Amino acid sequence: MFEFMTIRELYEAILSNQPMETDSIEYVELEGWVRTNRNSGKIGFIALNDGTYFRNAQIVYVKENLKNADEVAHISTGSSLHVTGKFKLTPGAKQPFEIEATAIEVEGACDEDYPLQKKRTSFEFLREIPHLRPRANSFYAMFRLRSVLSMAIHEFFQSQGFVYVHTPIITSNDGEGAGEMFRATTIDNTEFDKDFFGKEAFLTVTGQLHVEAFAMAFRDVYTFGPAFRAENSNTTRHASEFWMVEPEIAFADLEDDMDLIEDMVKYCIQYVLDNAPEEMKFFEQRIDHDCIKRITKVRDSHFARMTYSEAIEYLQKADVKFDNSNIYWGMDLNAEHERYICEQIVKGPVFLTDYPKEIKAFYMRLNDDGKTVAACDLLVPGIGELVGGSQREERYDVLEKIMDEKGMNKETLQWYMDLRRYGGCKHAGFGLGFDRLLMYLTGMGNIRDVEPFPRTPRNLKF
Amino acid sequence: MFEFMTIRELYEAILSNQPMETDSIEYVELEGWVRTNRNSGKIGFIALNDGTYFRNAQIVYVKENLKNADEVAHISTGSSLHVTGKFKLTPGAKQPFEIEATAIEVEGACDEDYPLQKKRTSFEFLREIPHLRPRANSFYAMFRLRSVLSMAIHEFFQSQGFVYVHTPIITSNDGEGAGEMFRATTIDNTEFDKDFFGKEAFLTVTGQLHVEAFAMAFRDVYTFGPAFRAENSNTTRHASEFWMVEPEIAFADLEDDMDLIEDMVKYCIQYVLDNAPEEMKFFEQRIDHDCIKRITKVRDSHFARMTYSEAIEYLQKADVKFDNSNIYWGMDLNAEHERYICEQIVKGPVFLTDYPKEIKAFYMRLNDDGKTVAACDLLVPGIGELVGGSQREERYDVLEKIMDEKGMNKETLQWYMDLRRYGGCKHAGFGLGFDRLLMYLTGMGNIRDVEPFPRTPRNLKF
Repeated sequence: MFEFMTIRELYEAILSNQPMETDSIEYVELEGWVRTNRNSGKIGFIALNDGTYFRNAQIVYVKENLKNADEVAHISTGSSLHVTGKFKLTPGAKQPFEIEATAIEVEGACDEDYPLQKKRTSFEFLREIPHLRPRANSFYAMFRLRSVLSMAIHEFFQSQGFVYVHTPIITSNDGEGAGEMFRATTIDNTEFDKDFFGKEAFLTVTGQLHVEAFAMAFRDVYTFGPAFRAENSNTTRHASEFWMVEPEIAFADLEDDMDLIEDMVKYCIQYVLDNAPEEMKFFEQRIDHDCIKRITKVRDSHFARMTYSEAIEYLQKADVKFDNSNIYWGMDLNAEHERYICEQIVKGPVFLTDYPKEIKAFYMRLNDDGKTVAACDLLVPGIGELVGGSQREERYDVLEKIMDEKGMNKETLQWYMDLRRYGGCKHAGFGLGFDRLLMYLTGMGNIRDVEPFPRTPRNLKF
Repeated sequence: MFEFMTIRELYEAILSNQPMETDSIEYVELEGWVRTNRNSGKIGFIALNDGTYFRNAQIVYVKENLKNADEVAHISTGSSLHVTGKFKLTPGAKQPFEIEATAIEVEGACDEDYPLQKKRTSFEFLREIPHLRPRANSFYAMFRLRSVLSMAIHEFFQSQGFVYVHTPIITSNDGEGAGEMFRATTIDNTEFDKDFFGKEAFLTVTGQLHVEAFAMAFRDVYTFGPAFRAENSNTTRHASEFWMVEPEIAFADLEDDMDLIEDMVKYCIQYVLDNAPEEMKFFEQRIDHDCIKRITKVRDSHFARMTYSEAIEYLQKADVKFDNSNIYWGMDLNAEHERYICEQIVKGPVFLTDYPKEIKAFYMRLNDDGKTVAACDLLVPGIGELVGGSQREERYDVLEKIMDEKGMNKETLQWYMDLRRYGGCKHAGFGLGFDRLLMYLTGMGNIRDVEPFPRTPRNLKF
């Protein structure tokens, strides 16, 4: 009798170390795609992957045992197959088991111009074929990890009672200086009163303002969804479409916010180590030899906390030559400064807090000194800023004053200001760039290689 | 000693029926928002909600025990408070416990023009204030349910090894007749070669085509994210922005697809009954007396299966007067027809299958009869169509022929067609309108009332 099984089930039965589990498996039926097919003389080997597990199953075939031996010998990489065969443990071999094929049936052949024939293809080349690259090892590992990390986010927040809010993608908020925006439109000009919504509409750059409204009902909320920036810059860390995690907590201050960030980052690290061990091993071997060590250390660290003003003092005293060496209180820190602080001074993750109000967003809470705001940026070794958060300004008059100072249009944000008049309270939140967290965990150097169909200036594939 | 607790923790301690749990609670500290405040003479009652649980905590205060008795007596609905007090079980009373306040501190007052003062406000009115309506009971229940149902979707698929794919929002696919689309642009005209992506870009109407590519690598995948329709029609069931769940399974046919749909719908029903019992009870009492009974029955039903052709025969023989009474093979069924089939003929959930190819999408697999395609629509009593799925056409030549018949632009979909040349296989999938499932579960009659910030023609609030 043949039992249909997935390759994950076979590996997990073996890795469970319970002999009972594999003893009962005799003949199995598998479906999947050919990674390689090599044969010589009477015998052949197919590495089959069925999409359920990072590793392949080795299919061994003896030509004289197959009805379609000639067809099988010529099966090309990428083809989809049905395989039935005898399951056999192979202790000591590279693969812990193999399948001795009794029948191999081609379900879908693969044309000769298949672009993934070669063993090694460049990431640049693979970006041109986003519909095929999930079959290449690096992307096969990445996109399962992306799924696992998404679930980590949901489980972390839901297990603590946070309410998930689908903040809108199309918005009339113009982003308040958070960057260039895409317009969503159905007209060919700028007569917005005749447009679909009767006014100008944008793709969101952040769900924070909307999710704050929900924090005033549910206390602890989060949004996790796509956001957009229409900035015409080509860097390895910017995409025009990306996913953001934005929690918001009521009756909470900056300290609570930093505790939450620290818990979340540690939870995510443990979750991917537990739930994507094969994938993480691959990234360690092929992409970034240091990645597992680095994140394990972060998981086990206490996250330090240092004010921006202290950081400026350290930078002014620093015995190194920065590209931007003009260090003064009020400046925006560059990546080199951030990395110096966390790698050389703190030697571990650190929250920088209490930034000058001029270089931070209007909604951040003004400190009693009148000069700084209750913001925090989490800096981690190897990358710099990973998360940015703040306590929000809950005082209507203070918020109004800073909006005036920054020359903002108060009319379109009256609803947001009103949250302060109707039972407002102390609250805080943060934003995590989900794609950047994936880059950080794996050492992948380009945001284009952690997104399924990356969108960047003049690049829109399918 | 005062212990900080949430109202959910207090209710769960009581509902757990373990006397130990509540015996140890003496004095508690709560934070939350005032739903009502009434007092007369020496004593007063505040219904406090802290966002963690559907029900309120009753705060009892004796004026002479409070330092700020006069302030407390005048606290208005919507204000945010800190309350400390003695926890007291009240068996037999409407509330299972109350808090005898020792101190009540106002954190954020609520202005007199607060729009949620009145006990009953119309849904139409509340749609004008989406930033405040989550505090009104119906929306407080709805938006927690929305979060719970989102988690049901993720848990259902992830527990079975499905990979979650973030399919892109901005796409160059023009939707192939699935409806009007929004354009994403940074220019004021139609010179798309000068636009951000160097070509015309749209907001996605479906993630299916993209997710199919990932099914060819991971076998079982799903996408769950926003989709858009720029149709200028105002109905209670259409929004311009909505969330879709779109799974895709490889090495699977239409039967497997229907099994998956049935499992998913039943799982979601059980999940909300288990994880949002207070909210579902509210919908049963206030919105739709039949809702829990209806969905419980669906959970316990076997989902019937009937071909479109059989359904046409039943409709032709039907002893009722339809608004559209011109019944013929090849027609598109209206809601009245669908409801007749599932409510009068099957008396329960039913999959209609094998629709005429002319009325279905190009990617659905052509049956051997050459006239119908391997599609399925799940019809449920009370609403009609809930889910639509199909086996996909995996034969390159057949797909190409139907695309020609439908006059489609093959050039922009060559990548999709190529999936059939590179190890394609039998596969199937479906689309679930997440917002419509929420409407179905609760009996809420308007899609505007299940979305946090609904977007419809000429309506874009914040």
